[in-house]
Amino acid sequence: MRKMKYTIKDIAKITGYSVATISRALSGKEGVSEEKRKEILRIIDQLGYIPNQSARRLRSKETKNILVMIPDIENYFFNKLIKGIETEAREKGYNIILGDFSDSQEIEEEYYKMMKGQIADGILIVGSLSEPQKVVEMSRQFPMVVISDYFSDELVTVCIDNFKAAYDATMFLYKCGYRRIAKITGKIGAMLSQDRLKGYKMALENLGLSSDEKYIKYGDFKYESGYKLAKELLSAKPCPDAIFCSNDEMAIGACDAAKELGFSIPDELGVMGFDDIELSSMVTPKITTVHQPRYEMGKLSAQLLINILAGEEISKGKYILDTSIIPRDSTKNANITK
Amino acid sequence: MRKMKYTIKDIAKITGYSVATISRALSGKEGVSEEKRKEILRIIDQLGYIPNQSARRLRSKETKNILVMIPDIENYFFNKLIKGIETEAREKGYNIILGDFSDSQEIEEEYYKMMKGQIADGILIVGSLSEPQKVVEMSRQFPMVVISDYFSDELVTVCIDNFKAAYDATMFLYKCGYRRIAKITGKIGAMLSQDRLKGYKMALENLGLSSDEKYIKYGDFKYESGYKLAKELLSAKPCPDAIFCSNDEMAIGACDAAKELGFSIPDELGVMGFDDIELSSMVTPKITTVHQPRYEMGKLSAQLLINILAGEEISKGKYILDTSIIPRDSTKNANITK
Repeated sequence: MRKMKYTIKDIAKITGYSVATISRALSGKEGVSEEKRKEILRIIDQLGYIPNQSARRLRSKETKNILVMIPDIENYFFNKLIKGIETEAREKGYNIILGDFSDSQEIEEEYYKMMKGQIADGILIVGSLSEPQKVVEMSRQFPMVVISDYFSDELVTVCIDNFKAAYDATMFLYKCGYRRIAKITGKIGAMLSQDRLKGYKMALENLGLSSDEKYIKYGDFKYESGYKLAKELLSAKPCPDAIFCSNDEMAIGACDAAKELGFSIPDELGVMGFDDIELSSMVTPKITTVHQPRYEMGKLSAQLLINILAGEEISKGKYILDTSIIPRDSTKNANITK
Repeated sequence: MRKMKYTIKDIAKITGYSVATISRALSGKEGVSEEKRKEILRIIDQLGYIPNQSARRLRSKETKNILVMIPDIENYFFNKLIKGIETEAREKGYNIILGDFSDSQEIEEEYYKMMKGQIADGILIVGSLSEPQKVVEMSRQFPMVVISDYFSDELVTVCIDNFKAAYDATMFLYKCGYRRIAKITGKIGAMLSQDRLKGYKMALENLGLSSDEKYIKYGDFKYESGYKLAKELLSAKPCPDAIFCSNDEMAIGACDAAKELGFSIPDELGVMGFDDIELSSMVTPKITTVHQPRYEMGKLSAQLLINILAGEEISKGKYILDTSIIPRDSTKNANITK
């Protein structure tokens, strides 16, 4: 899968531009027109040229810091991921700078500007509100690894197979005996939310169950949206007999809504989450969910980034970790023979 | 409360040591015997000399980083605190380096060593496993603010009044009609845990209720310890009719234990938490608790540290923020006339 490697001099020969111009285009510095920059980047993409991050870094001062971009530290998904990153980084002599951007694209961009001010040697992206192409362009300027979400094959990405995990979870709900399976998605701008929705739809299709738009609600990963959207779903006629939420926080909200409306869980309504945050086994009923190896994802992503910083060649694309279904009290027992 | 300020030259005159030796003693550098260092620090303590952090910092390179020392990022208490710190720091042009030491003194000390390697301009201590005197000595080497826990009047500390908050919470349980009020403490090495225990004991004393050692269990702030210790408490004869836990995670564990044993909450058993983490209103029953202004504590501590870094004089001692009791479903209604 590795592409042939070109040097910046090769790119200069091929494009006819000077090494300085190409360098400027790559680093996003001024002094090269937007048109010229796009042309150069297009050619570079076609050739599969990978800027020598290590060499570039040697020209600048090493900080031994890694910037970790987190959409919202208050989301319970991230603590174990950060723990994995921090543990690996510290053992390898790196510190982590926390770039919590509070779900604000403005703050996200502030951090990218700080990167240009060399606050860190590399960047771990745990989520982004920017266009995928913007993230890819950033990866040309700074060593980068993406965790959990996915933007492009041009990036090094540590993730799970969200499509397959959601497909399996929907199949599991079917095996538990549920037939009118509704879905509350995560923020639909995120590729991982789209993949979880696609996996759900594909499972329904393969099961011969029709996918009904009124059974699909678009949430935002937060408790309140699970609570509110479950109330909407449970007022539909006929009412769904299961709700598959794209994370555990929304599943907990959905359970609370169902309990308030007098539904008995899991008999009248099954609820399934996603992530397996600690919280999911601390609530009543304990939430059936999809386990994501968050600590391991954090560790692996830090390891890959540090390898890149050390000048190692890391193949681009997805590094996929396994998930598993954790049956708990919010769903009936799966009839495995079915 | 401000003490007269001495310069390093005054200290030299008074002690008879050279400025260089005193500087070495203060910064923890080699070249001065342990005995000599202790003598110098003792005299300095008596005089109330405050090393000019700002001047020291000007001699070294500014990093525009703040190190935030967190005992365990997986504890749900810290997310809002970090959010407050991060927001204030970013607005003032500082980044935060996350020093999660995973409840390990070894890792905590690794981070202090890194501070000597100038990874950050100042340090926010959200908890420590070191001796108070060690933390005080550190504060002579680096600009420092302590949050939430308390070590010494020689430090700038942003906190709540843990004694008073626990006193009020115990009084509240009494007003709800509970009479055999048990306590599950936090890690008892932490001053805040001791203060919460003392407040509980003082309330019982003032109420004329005897404080019974068999009703006091020593927990560690984690769900599992709340669960396990509540089971122990509920097997006592006579059994307590309320459990006041020193944080919400343990209160949630205590509720789960009580439910398993068939206790009806809040009628047969009242459970009270501390902190008001988001989780406490997401579980069943929703937990009655003491609200701590975590975001504001984070913001204020970052603000104070940044002021110190800017060379401002900040009074040492406690900066105390208000708490309030949040009545929810895990306790009966308080009879206010009682």
